[in-house]
Amino acid sequence: MGRRVLAIAGGVGGAKLALGLYRTLPSADLTVIVNTGDDDVFHGLHVSPDLDTVMYTVAGVSNREQGWGLEGETFRTMERLGVLGGETWFRLGDRDLATHLRRTELLASGLTLSQVTLELCSRLGVACTVAPMADEPVRTMVETDEGELAFQRYFVERRCEPRVKGVRFQGAECARPSPAFRESLDAADVLVFCPSNPFVSIGPVLAVPGVRDAIAGFRGTRVAVSPIIGGQAVRGPAAKMFAELGEEASCTAVALRYRGLCDVFVLDETDASSADAIEKLGMTAVVAPTLMVSEEDKARLARVVVAAV
Amino acid sequence: MGRRVLAIAGGVGGAKLALGLYRTLPSADLTVIVNTGDDDVFHGLHVSPDLDTVMYTVAGVSNREQGWGLEGETFRTMERLGVLGGETWFRLGDRDLATHLRRTELLASGLTLSQVTLELCSRLGVACTVAPMADEPVRTMVETDEGELAFQRYFVERRCEPRVKGVRFQGAECARPSPAFRESLDAADVLVFCPSNPFVSIGPVLAVPGVRDAIAGFRGTRVAVSPIIGGQAVRGPAAKMFAELGEEASCTAVALRYRGLCDVFVLDETDASSADAIEKLGMTAVVAPTLMVSEEDKARLARVVVAAV
Repeated sequence: MGRRVLAIAGGVGGAKLALGLYRTLPSADLTVIVNTGDDDVFHGLHVSPDLDTVMYTVAGVSNREQGWGLEGETFRTMERLGVLGGETWFRLGDRDLATHLRRTELLASGLTLSQVTLELCSRLGVACTVAPMADEPVRTMVETDEGELAFQRYFVERRCEPRVKGVRFQGAECARPSPAFRESLDAADVLVFCPSNPFVSIGPVLAVPGVRDAIAGFRGTRVAVSPIIGGQAVRGPAAKMFAELGEEASCTAVALRYRGLCDVFVLDETDASSADAIEKLGMTAVVAPTLMVSEEDKARLARVVVAAV
Repeated sequence: MGRRVLAIAGGVGGAKLALGLYRTLPSADLTVIVNTGDDDVFHGLHVSPDLDTVMYTVAGVSNREQGWGLEGETFRTMERLGVLGGETWFRLGDRDLATHLRRTELLASGLTLSQVTLELCSRLGVACTVAPMADEPVRTMVETDEGELAFQRYFVERRCEPRVKGVRFQGAECARPSPAFRESLDAADVLVFCPSNPFVSIGPVLAVPGVRDAIAGFRGTRVAVSPIIGGQAVRGPAAKMFAELGEEASCTAVALRYRGLCDVFVLDETDASSADAIEKLGMTAVVAPTLMVSEEDKARLARVVVAAV
């Protein structure tokens, strides 16, 4: 067994690096811990968008164009649900629905979200460990100028348009790291913060009691990859959130949020001039191409991350 | 308002006559009360097969070839559910799934099955009243030589192959006729037993406390249409059940089961020789073509039923 890697991921950006790591490392050496603050219940079904994005991406069945959901998806159930007066703003594909039905059914039978994820991964042929950050429900609530919105309402229904005033993680105080997360925090040699939104993808993970301390005292090397490139998020509302919360959207601002939790900070070539500022935060700055478009980009960034240790 | 008709229906045969009545009568004059003993929960979703068959048929969106389900159906969610290790013997179509998701969601919100059915019918453009026999759960359990099977296990998974020893209606003792059923039992001028399986389609309705007495004391005229033609069921296990329960499958055997609950018994021309035996049971025997293949067949049989009164 080589160096064991614990990757902490949110949605699409996290899934891309997780795929790169999966292709680069022996699968037994990789544990991907995924944000579940985005989880919600639609039509009675437990939907875990970030877990699904990571599972589908690593399994090679994700829709590569949109970065989430399954390839070759259709929306016949959703279209019909609209006819019947159901809510359709959160569009669940026909094939994707099977995941939510199965997850909900297995949860109702008494399995934990970790156990259900293990079963789904096994069926999808995912050979590394993919696990939720916690088995207890944590819900990311976005405080906005239109009031507090559950994450998917903010993200999907309102398209990140409301101005963000803060974020809180409902239920986090009753959560604890999932078994795979605890084990990996103890045993891994490398911890990677994938290039995910620091507020709503990594934030919920750090809000689980004990996680921040465990990462602060982590035995190995901690590497973070900036999700901000040239002041912009590759996708999603990270840059907009920084601005609305009164901070400049920059890789340095991301690094600041990881102070005390990170040894090596990987920033994009575009931001090379920020390397000094990041080093001053007590981290080793590694400048590399971080934009992941092709499959090769993902594997290359994974190699950069592992080599940076 | 003309003569008000209360039709009691099970699955496909019942739905056919219900459609004939719907096309023949002013919709305000027709109430269709449907068996819910077939209801079950699949993947956490409340499925009401007979209600759906009646709703879809009357709305004109049913699959005309198979007689149940929606036209133009696909099974993408089911196929995927199989990949994920879920049970797939009860095949739910992608468009059909929307009905079950919506029903389950509305039930979870606190509506009764009657209220949910009203909402679904309204969305589907069904102008007559379609309601469950009861809002409380009643589950038809089939006692067989392989042990007791929930109805769908017997009917769909085991294709009616096990030998039937009896039928019971779990929960019936706690059920009561739905509001629409009670109102119609009081106010209708004609009560029609559609040509549905007497054991597992009409049986559960008659097992709801109070129904048998209300029908025995019904103010208007009660008409039954035989689901057995020439010793055979048009579809489903009715003839096989009669045989396994030690009775000859015949329209006379059906009529025997309605003794005291029926004034007019409609039998097929094939069985004209049974008319005398049926008259001896105290019913008026009406011989007519009862096989419903075309749309015109359904309307014609509906006219026969209404004219027989």
